[in-house]
Amino acid sequence: MRPSGRDLSEMRAVSIETGVTMHAEGSCLIRMGNTHVLCTATIEDRVPPFIKGSGLGWVTAEYGMLPRATNTRMRREATAGKQGGRTVEIQRLIGRSLRAGVDRVALGERQITVDCDVIQADGGTRCASITGGWVALRLAVNKLMKAGDVISDPLVDPVAAVSCGVYAGQAVLDLDYPEDSEAGVDGNFIIHGDGRLIEVQMSAEGATFSRDQMNQLMDLAEKGTAELMAAQKAATT
Amino acid sequence: MRPSGRDLSEMRAVSIETGVTMHAEGSCLIRMGNTHVLCTATIEDRVPPFIKGSGLGWVTAEYGMLPRATNTRMRREATAGKQGGRTVEIQRLIGRSLRAGVDRVALGERQITVDCDVIQADGGTRCASITGGWVALRLAVNKLMKAGDVISDPLVDPVAAVSCGVYAGQAVLDLDYPEDSEAGVDGNFIIHGDGRLIEVQMSAEGATFSRDQMNQLMDLAEKGTAELMAAQKAATT
Amino acid sequence: MRPSGRDLSEMRAVSIETGVTMHAEGSCLIRMGNTHVLCTATIEDRVPPFIKGSGLGWVTAEYGMLPRATNTRMRREATAGKQGGRTVEIQRLIGRSLRAGVDRVALGERQITVDCDVIQADGGTRCASITGGWVALRLAVNKLMKAGDVISDPLVDPVAAVSCGVYAGQAVLDLDYPEDSEAGVDGNFIIHGDGRLIEVQMSAEGATFSRDQMNQLMDLAEKGTAELMAAQKAATT
Amino acid sequence: MRPSGRDLSEMRAVSIETGVTMHAEGSCLIRMGNTHVLCTATIEDRVPPFIKGSGLGWVTAEYGMLPRATNTRMRREATAGKQGGRTVEIQRLIGRSLRAGVDRVALGERQITVDCDVIQADGGTRCASITGGWVALRLAVNKLMKAGDVISDPLVDPVAAVSCGVYAGQAVLDLDYPEDSEAGVDGNFIIHGDGRLIEVQMSAEGATFSRDQMNQLMDLAEKGTAELMAAQKAATT
Amino acid sequence: MRPSGRDLSEMRAVSIETGVTMHAEGSCLIRMGNTHVLCTATIEDRVPPFIKGSGLGWVTAEYGMLPRATNTRMRREATAGKQGGRTVEIQRLIGRSLRAGVDRVALGERQITVDCDVIQADGGTRCASITGGWVALRLAVNKLMKAGDVISDPLVDPVAAVSCGVYAGQAVLDLDYPEDSEAGVDGNFIIHGDGRLIEVQMSAEGATFSRDQMNQLMDLAEKGTAELMAAQKAATT
Amino acid sequence: MRPSGRDLSEMRAVSIETGVTMHAEGSCLIRMGNTHVLCTATIEDRVPPFIKGSGLGWVTAEYGMLPRATNTRMRREATAGKQGGRTVEIQRLIGRSLRAGVDRVALGERQITVDCDVIQADGGTRCASITGGWVALRLAVNKLMKAGDVISDPLVDPVAAVSCGVYAGQAVLDLDYPEDSEAGVDGNFIIHGDGRLIEVQMSAEGATFSRDQMNQLMDLAEKGTAELMAAQKAATT
Repeated sequence: MRPSGRDLSEMRAVSIETGVTMHAEGSCLIRMGNTHVLCTATIEDRVPPFIKGSGLGWVTAEYGMLPRATNTRMRREATAGKQGGRTVEIQRLIGRSLRAGVDRVALGERQITVDCDVIQADGGTRCASITGGWVALRLAVNKLMKAGDVISDPLVDPVAAVSCGVYAGQAVLDLDYPEDSEAGVDGNFIIHGDGRLIEVQMSAEGATFSRDQMNQLMDLAEKGTAELMAAQKAATT
Repeated sequence: MRPSGRDLSEMRAVSIETGVTMHAEGSCLIRMGNTHVLCTATIEDRVPPFIKGSGLGWVTAEYGMLPRATNTRMRREATAGKQGGRTVEIQRLIGRSLRAGVDRVALGERQITVDCDVIQADGGTRCASITGGWVALRLAVNKLMKAGDVISDPLVDPVAAVSCGVYAGQAVLDLDYPEDSEAGVDGNFIIHGDGRLIEVQMSAEGATFSRDQMNQLMDLAEKGTAELMAAQKAATT
Repeated sequence: MRPSGRDLSEMRAVSIETGVTMHAEGSCLIRMGNTHVLCTATIEDRVPPFIKGSGLGWVTAEYGMLPRATNTRMRREATAGKQGGRTVEIQRLIGRSLRAGVDRVALGERQITVDCDVIQADGGTRCASITGGWVALRLAVNKLMKAGDVISDPLVDPVAAVSCGVYAGQAVLDLDYPEDSEAGVDGNFIIHGDGRLIEVQMSAEGATFSRDQMNQLMDLAEKGTAELMAAQKAATT
Repeated sequence: MRPSGRDLSEMRAVSIETGVTMHAEGSCLIRMGNTHVLCTATIEDRVPPFIKGSGLGWVTAEYGMLPRATNTRMRREATAGKQGGRTVEIQRLIGRSLRAGVDRVALGERQITVDCDVIQADGGTRCASITGGWVALRLAVNKLMKAGDVISDPLVDPVAAVSCGVYAGQAVLDLDYPEDSEAGVDGNFIIHGDGRLIEVQMSAEGATFSRDQMNQLMDLAEKGTAELMAAQKAATT
Repeated sequence: MRPSGRDLSEMRAVSIETGVTMHAEGSCLIRMGNTHVLCTATIEDRVPPFIKGSGLGWVTAEYGMLPRATNTRMRREATAGKQGGRTVEIQRLIGRSLRAGVDRVALGERQITVDCDVIQADGGTRCASITGGWVALRLAVNKLMKAGDVISDPLVDPVAAVSCGVYAGQAVLDLDYPEDSEAGVDGNFIIHGDGRLIEVQMSAEGATFSRDQMNQLMDLAEKGTAELMAAQKAATT
Repeated sequence: MRPSGRDLSEMRAVSIETGVTMHAEGSCLIRMGNTHVLCTATIEDRVPPFIKGSGLGWVTAEYGMLPRATNTRMRREATAGKQGGRTVEIQRLIGRSLRAGVDRVALGERQITVDCDVIQADGGTRCASITGGWVALRLAVNKLMKAGDVISDPLVDPVAAVSCGVYAGQAVLDLDYPEDSEAGVDGNFIIHGDGRLIEVQMSAEGATFSRDQMNQLMDLAEKGTAELMAAQKAATT
């Protein structure tokens, strides 16, 4: 039995509230159970030096956690003087995942920065950031298209992410913190709207896993991201 | 006329929503018009080295802004590698102001850290942080008292703060961003529930002010903080 | 009675020695009792990016303390890897205060950096820095005017600063360190030569103050800065 | 056809030279084709604070690249003032992977740090680091066992890693740099000596992949790591 | 002819004013021509970890330059976020040189930190720092001996330093800035009161030198440091 | 007797293996006994700002040590967040020494960066870096000349370096670590192929030395660098 009483393949309640800040070109507050992430998308007319003049666009992401988003207060990274290894790893993953769903020619030579700030954490913050980040990105691109700055839609299919893991010997979908902290094996699955895979990260801390288990987790992830894509669609249309 | 159409001595709409995060010992989301600040209070059993063993408590504060809380995206301080001068100045002010309202003997040898994170900015974020920070602090102390860890209430009167300034030649209460960016003179007034002053900061950029103007701003501040204290009271009882 | 035996409204002995370094365009060593600050002004032909091409000038300030300016040795900020919060707060105040007394159009598109380095500290270093910094600035501007690089004087009136506080229940002028470390309430008053106010900062640590006390401190500050302006005048003419 | 002329499932020549530095408790120089990594293992009697007194051991890793290990010189991270995001991500992966193969009870309360420094890079440096890092670790543990400091072997099975990817539409084993820079999809597979999986990371930059392709890459990885484990065995017995 | 009109073996005017700050245990302002360095010595009862419990004392040094000590303003190291390479090199030299003249057993388990801050620079600041630093150290040790905290004098002979170089083809003593910036070869010579050498650093930038020239510079240095030791003696007795 | 059994004026075995990395324009692995340093030279078409447009070339150096190059593991400087004082001092010395042997007009407006990374340390790493660094530089320049990018050879004579010291009362050549850690006096001698001196650094830690001893060490250094220049010649022709 899962601590939350959920079925093995049951997601937490998902809600995506859009337009939550007045300044950003796109924004949403995504809630996956008790994990709440505020995602904003900022459009800028400049691109990183390595693609200047290429005509291609760029999408990048940054990730942060409010100090008391967690059970015990974490030191503020601005005070520590640098982003921790975990933060850097997560924001690189978010950026890479979102870019996989973007037609950078259609976007044109501009940059969209997606900021994902965790307001409250209960496991699965990086997956919530990707799923919510895509919504903020979608809304910002809608604005560009409405203004006629972008003609052909650079976001054909959504990008969504979910974590799965082996908890108490069973493959379970959408780990919350009590499960995540116990699971010997867990994975993050980033999947495209056309059913193809963008990124798969499975790792074990103090355990190992078989190819069979890997396939079970993949099956759960496909189910979970389909549900997330439905929520993304509902929020953006 | 003020850009918002408010009267010279009219505050923005104030709302204080409590219990907004599941982890913190005290929390609120304070909204002063379009300025929204999430305040959390964290209780820890350790105190800074310089008061260890003194039996006295400590209250400190940290301040941050989400990158897109503002009209144009600001660089994340964790990425920049340090807190900017403005941030440090503000969080020192918040901590000093809250401590002025705390009986540190009654609090006992423990530390409460108040984090103020600006979700959306439209002027007056430091004052909103102090007013909301006091609410988070009040709720955390209530928890300590309910548990019997603190017997005598260390927070006799509230602490509230408001900004006033000279806009278009007139003294106005509770500056929003359009006013703040135009005002040649502005001040922050931190006032205690017993009517005495905790901190007064008036400064001019490209202008100067008379003692008469100083007194007009003080009068407005007393009116404004009285209204804020009513909102604090409503939120915490 | 004050530890130094001074009257309540008596300043410490003030001396301002000019031309103390051979390299700077303007310089002085200001002594307010045992507080000694070396102030230099450096003229550069470049301005910060945000005013490039505007025709306006800029005045900025930096502040430092020699490690053994204080009673116990403080860690060198260059070794610590950053300026502390107190340092940043002080140098922002110095720059803002001096700029309030500058006609930036008359100055023309150039920058003057005022460095204030505390050689020996006994309370009131930020006020001494502003008062002495203005002298260094005045001397540097004199050089520009003499050379015909600036025609109309951008410094019509002086800027001076003094601290006042409530010590042993009494309002006193020009706090020295023994008073400053005991005073529950203290303030810094930056005043323009025309009698108008530039910045007022009053704060309480572990106490509060009334509007009456605020007015008493203001009265003392006006007396003190008048004396400082006489010393500035004597030093620069 | 692969740029190197290798078959689709053909590894590069692998060599593992042990005992290459006089100071380290275990060391090797691993060469996977033109990728050369120097791995050393250092035994220390202290453990990180979070496991002090637990009786458990710890294995951690650090990763670096000499500035001219690559085709164009990269800035030295010690000069830049911090480890880049890629470095941090890699060294966390190495440490996690090696720990998965360690019986931390059998190791006892001591720490082994595995340093992996890339002397020459031609793709696959993180996988070479894991495979060579395990050899350095094995040799250090051998020393502990020979000295009687450790009785039961904490390293029952080896840990090896290989990268695979989709190059020119085909699944290929052990990517070199020319392949890696062209491959739209690539993965790192860390596998235990008992055939179970430790970590799987597959990612796409500017492409996506199917579950079929995922399985093809997994098959190749199992073949490749089997060959690497034979080389590890030959080097350590 | 030298720019200053001095003879080849003529020092600049040297003055050493002691007791220049009220807080430090020992202090002096040394002037070698237009090079002015403020030196303070701070006694602390703690020693660095590597000699804790050894009964030995420690002497260390730190070096800084005020931003406008030089002809053009240099960036403040506290702002830059670190001490530059030149600064670190110089302060290591000062500390090493002073320690060579200290009987660390006689000093007892305490640390003396010598801070050398350049108020005005005109060449030879590191040598002036050593010579003046020794005076500050001597005065601090005198205080310890007077108080009976140290019985046997740990400073039997003085330490003094001077720079020499090849300017316009001639060996000259005590380079000032105009000479130093032209000299292809220059050296710093740190000499003990008993005539033995503590440190010799000769280097060429864009030139080389012969052993003959090396010996000429050594001869000049012996003459110069003898004069400096006379000034040290006069200042400390 | 020396710990290694060498005669007083006997060097350790020297070997210089060239072409050790595939990417660098010049490279070697120099071994002086158990001290092993990997030196690479990188040619870039840009020069530092202060010589842009001058037509002059630039040679600079960086130095590093692998964490376990030493007997006990040292903290990685990239993790510590900065290069230590010793590292900065050494790399400045290497750069200065190599530049003394370069005709910067003949080199033309390009930069060569020499990276010296210590693989294994047993004393004398800075001298080995200079001697090996010159070989890497020579090979890179050969490449430029072969390609016709440089016509006149900018490296007429080699640069070599050796350490000497007073060990157990006797002047000895080429100190290894056991000698270096005991020697009260040691020096680094950087000598040009024409017999003239480039840099001499002699220092004492806890001892002093006479001019006689200085001359004995110089004699040994001349013998030692002659042998090193023979090895450099053999390696590069």
